[in-house]
Amino acid sequence: MTDQERTLREKLRIKPGETIRLKDRSPRDKSLFGDEQQTKAATAALAKEIDTLQDRLYAEGSRALLVVLQGTDTSGKDGTIRGVFNATGPLGVTVHAFGPPSRLELEHDYLWRVHAACPRRGTIGIFNRSHYEDVLVGKVRKLAPEKVIEQRYEQINAFEKMLVETGTTILKFMLHISKDEQKERLQERLADPAKHWKFNPGDLEDREHWDDYQEAYEIMLHRCSTQWAPWHVIPADRKWVRNAAIATIVKATLEEMDPQYPKVSWNPGDFKVE
Amino acid sequence: MTDQERTLREKLRIKPGETIRLKDRSPRDKSLFGDEQQTKAATAALAKEIDTLQDRLYAEGSRALLVVLQGTDTSGKDGTIRGVFNATGPLGVTVHAFGPPSRLELEHDYLWRVHAACPRRGTIGIFNRSHYEDVLVGKVRKLAPEKVIEQRYEQINAFEKMLVETGTTILKFMLHISKDEQKERLQERLADPAKHWKFNPGDLEDREHWDDYQEAYEIMLHRCSTQWAPWHVIPADRKWVRNAAIATIVKATLEEMDPQYPKVSWNPGDFKVE
Repeated sequence: MTDQERTLREKLRIKPGETIRLKDRSPRDKSLFGDEQQTKAATAALAKEIDTLQDRLYAEGSRALLVVLQGTDTSGKDGTIRGVFNATGPLGVTVHAFGPPSRLELEHDYLWRVHAACPRRGTIGIFNRSHYEDVLVGKVRKLAPEKVIEQRYEQINAFEKMLVETGTTILKFMLHISKDEQKERLQERLADPAKHWKFNPGDLEDREHWDDYQEAYEIMLHRCSTQWAPWHVIPADRKWVRNAAIATIVKATLEEMDPQYPKVSWNPGDFKVE
Repeated sequence: MTDQERTLREKLRIKPGETIRLKDRSPRDKSLFGDEQQTKAATAALAKEIDTLQDRLYAEGSRALLVVLQGTDTSGKDGTIRGVFNATGPLGVTVHAFGPPSRLELEHDYLWRVHAACPRRGTIGIFNRSHYEDVLVGKVRKLAPEKVIEQRYEQINAFEKMLVETGTTILKFMLHISKDEQKERLQERLADPAKHWKFNPGDLEDREHWDDYQEAYEIMLHRCSTQWAPWHVIPADRKWVRNAAIATIVKATLEEMDPQYPKVSWNPGDFKVE
């Protein structure tokens, strides 16, 4: 990892126990990167490096990487996956989107479906939304009593700790956009028939609860950014900044994991293919 | 719960943090019960009460009961299920036997398959062996480094705490038999062709590690009998004592849970079936 990468990661990472005010963090911040075109080219190069590292992770077959993406509607979760992981492709990467729980899922604890979807050894798993919805929409819309929500922070920390201790590295990214930027993106969805499918009248209801959601995010970041599974707040009003930041951290993390091709027990020189 | 039931439960339950010497607990103890024939009749009556309570749990549909059975080979895990739950039948009861993990299971953390098998709301789930194998055979046969085994006790406690907080009551039973009783039961399996299928030459290997297993059980009982998910050590050399003890505790626990038939929103008198 270069010093520049380390600095970037430290700037975006929430320290365990840190108290966060999202208003103090500009979603339009681009100071971490230079020129837009150069940064986009660098991100494309990072995506290729991620692909190479993922190939080694897959061959090694003993560890996993879990990438959690959270953010309000239109914050760019799908776009991040395209921007950062499209060079990697589906062989060793799985994406799991968590929508409202099904009837079967509701018949179990809220982590049941999450645990089931955790990436197997050798792969990268991406959660497009996650168990954190249970302390976000769950809290704002009061889907569970306050006491139950309160217990979830610790339950989630313990669950993630177990995952990390058993071989999964976890990176969590909150895609931080401004209310103005969301307005523009929602209007775009209404204006473009090819984007109508992405619009949901419920998004407007959630928008009315903007401040409540921001507060729920702040509590989540404060309670659940742990040494073993850190949260990062990504300035996401600019898609190229968002992708560059996440690609940098994912690449640096995979490099630190340093997956190795397994040693083979035979000598290639002993074989001859006729 | 009667005073007698409460006394029995307290005698068999391991207090959080308690240090256990299995040698101090006789597997042949029958002092908790009176006459054998009377006790057997009482157990059959308890099994029927369990069935009634299970019907209410099923109708209520909001909570679950998880019964964990652990014990060395021939300790009577299958027999317990027959003796205590046969009156209940499969509608609201599931039994999950955990054997050696499959290749897919090994590609995830050891709690992955366990979480997946946890009982859904309204049901009783019985684990015939469980995640505790990972600190029993895992420890004795050194299937994982000592440091990894060490982490598991806390991981299991946190996992079970989450299950309890999200609506599952947990009862854990260690079926405690003597080495002499195991000898007899293994010899029976060798002598009776109808029981050959239950014999496994590996059982004799495990028998050679008897003392190591007893020690691993003692550590497990000490580390993982928690306020939220207590262990009970059941004297299991006598099958009727074993079944009576477990049936008593299961019945008393379901009674404490006190599941309720849901209130209906209509008046039966308003309807007439032609």
